[in-house]
Amino acid sequence: MSTSPLAPRGVLYHWAEVLPLTGQTPRITLGEGDTPLVRSAALEGQCGLDELWFKLESCNPTGSFKDRGMVVAVAKAMESGARAIMCASTGNTSASAAAYAARCGLECYVLVPGGRVAAGKMAQAIAYGSRIIEIDGNFDDALNAARELTAKHPVALVNSVNPYRIQGQKTAAYEICETLGDAPGMLAIPVGNAGNITAYWKGFSECAEKGLSTLHPRMLGFQAAGAAPLVSGIPVLEPNTVATAIRIGNPASWSGAIGARDESGGSIEAVTDEEILEAYRLLAAKEGLFVEPASAASVAGLLKLARAGRTRGGRAVAILTGNGLKDPDTATAQYTPDITRSAATVEGVERALGW
Amino acid sequence: MSTSPLAPRGVLYHWAEVLPLTGQTPRITLGEGDTPLVRSAALEGQCGLDELWFKLESCNPTGSFKDRGMVVAVAKAMESGARAIMCASTGNTSASAAAYAARCGLECYVLVPGGRVAAGKMAQAIAYGSRIIEIDGNFDDALNAARELTAKHPVALVNSVNPYRIQGQKTAAYEICETLGDAPGMLAIPVGNAGNITAYWKGFSECAEKGLSTLHPRMLGFQAAGAAPLVSGIPVLEPNTVATAIRIGNPASWSGAIGARDESGGSIEAVTDEEILEAYRLLAAKEGLFVEPASAASVAGLLKLARAGRTRGGRAVAILTGNGLKDPDTATAQYTPDITRSAATVEGVERALGW
Repeated sequence: MSTSPLAPRGVLYHWAEVLPLTGQTPRITLGEGDTPLVRSAALEGQCGLDELWFKLESCNPTGSFKDRGMVVAVAKAMESGARAIMCASTGNTSASAAAYAARCGLECYVLVPGGRVAAGKMAQAIAYGSRIIEIDGNFDDALNAARELTAKHPVALVNSVNPYRIQGQKTAAYEICETLGDAPGMLAIPVGNAGNITAYWKGFSECAEKGLSTLHPRMLGFQAAGAAPLVSGIPVLEPNTVATAIRIGNPASWSGAIGARDESGGSIEAVTDEEILEAYRLLAAKEGLFVEPASAASVAGLLKLARAGRTRGGRAVAILTGNGLKDPDTATAQYTPDITRSAATVEGVERALGW
Repeated sequence: MSTSPLAPRGVLYHWAEVLPLTGQTPRITLGEGDTPLVRSAALEGQCGLDELWFKLESCNPTGSFKDRGMVVAVAKAMESGARAIMCASTGNTSASAAAYAARCGLECYVLVPGGRVAAGKMAQAIAYGSRIIEIDGNFDDALNAARELTAKHPVALVNSVNPYRIQGQKTAAYEICETLGDAPGMLAIPVGNAGNITAYWKGFSECAEKGLSTLHPRMLGFQAAGAAPLVSGIPVLEPNTVATAIRIGNPASWSGAIGARDESGGSIEAVTDEEILEAYRLLAAKEGLFVEPASAASVAGLLKLARAGRTRGGRAVAILTGNGLKDPDTATAQYTPDITRSAATVEGVERALGW
């Protein structure tokens, strides 16, 4: 499609050789992947680390990490002849699925838990023209229904139970190794449905095998305390947390997450909503990074480990999974805005500022 | 700061040699710049073009193109010893200024026109911890006050009247030339305060001088019909448009915009709110690109030129300046969501979908 001398941007171009593509896989892209890896300006010491880096997955085209895997899943669905895709979603997956479906002329069906999806994400799914079914139930109920429906109808399931999603998401680990010149010693990551921690571990393992890195990072997964089945060891029937993106009681990639934890010598722990919101505010106020609450779970976890004296230097990467603009209601609820009204005069503004 | 083998991401690293930096300029970054350039999947032909590419400035860390210039303006302010910055803003500038100020430990004062800033942008400025003054007046009144206040007090003005803003924003033109291997024949861009069209023209002119490109693109600027002073030739006292980011009646870079237009053999024209919103919906539904209304002005303009038979093939780049999530209210108002409620059963969802 392109006549340009450089390879186009996008996961299917940049990472073709590590993905299960064929000559028939359409090379679609919305410019996903190749996201910034930014060094911490303020929280590094507070987290007890020598180096802390943030992977800004919020800079993906639909504002979350989901785009990396979705582009592979949708391309493979098209290769197989699908004309429609379906997903269950707490919001980010549906935004991403709807965007790629719109771009590729596919129908997109989205099953969301009733009343539990952040407003911005719903606006995205609506704008991209997906058909939305609001389920009387939680995410896990929606995913069960989507599994059964796609088994019965000629519609491709694009949740992270679709292995192509994991394949695409692993590319973020490759990018981190490429940027840092090696894998970090630790990877801090929010855990909901557990596809992403599974994907990163797969990516880091492949990088080590291929000689692109020498280290296997310890995988530090963090769940919200109200939705922490991987911590307690049993599914949570009524998951509840302000971090809607990880409000999941029975993770589809349960065994992948446990494998990542155990093979890497890492841990999966819980952080409270208060800890998540503290990290959410700190990231914006001290680092200039406005993320969705679920993203802040990775930093909340590092701060918690540091307070317990359990971090001892080294280099960590924290995954910031989604953009703060996706959840305007939490932002509004978290702040008492410092807004003063003034006439449009120098004197008025000086008075308003107390100058 | 970094121990990694590769140069860090960011405008001050990637484009240092074309920016007015010194050894004393702090190399700050939020990972801005290096945004995707994505080929049109659907609207290319409808726009009467051989090739249409979208520059996704929405993928910058605060979700708009402002980050490119703000990183330079804030770094130079720090170099000069400033401990505080100020801007007038329709929203994107304040979000960007507040983010870099938070990251760098500076005070940030934001003057916004009362009741005319999109909700997401205000949420950003609040989360990043800026002090917000809501002015009884429009953007132009706020900018006048900011100019006078920063002349009187030791606070750096970071609006695009600050020449470092234009310097940073020009880097997007360099990136386009780098990705395409040459400048495009046409550049379609929304025009509000006119700093960005000025910056792109500067960037393309420099690329041609340096031998990085052979073409000078025709600069096609588009203003909202209710805020089109560069089209009418006289300032608009009460600018009004759904595209809040370009709701500006007396552009600070007036002469820069006219220079870009005339030197490039281009044009600056008006598009109505209806045309802007049509393009806004088409970008989401046909390209999978959810942008803020002002961004859609560039595509609305191309569609308008095509309908008048004024596009005749060639390669154009349209600048998509900001993320759709910044203006959730417009998104909500533009769509009748296709949402059906259902029990969490296969039969329920089948019924809901009419399967």
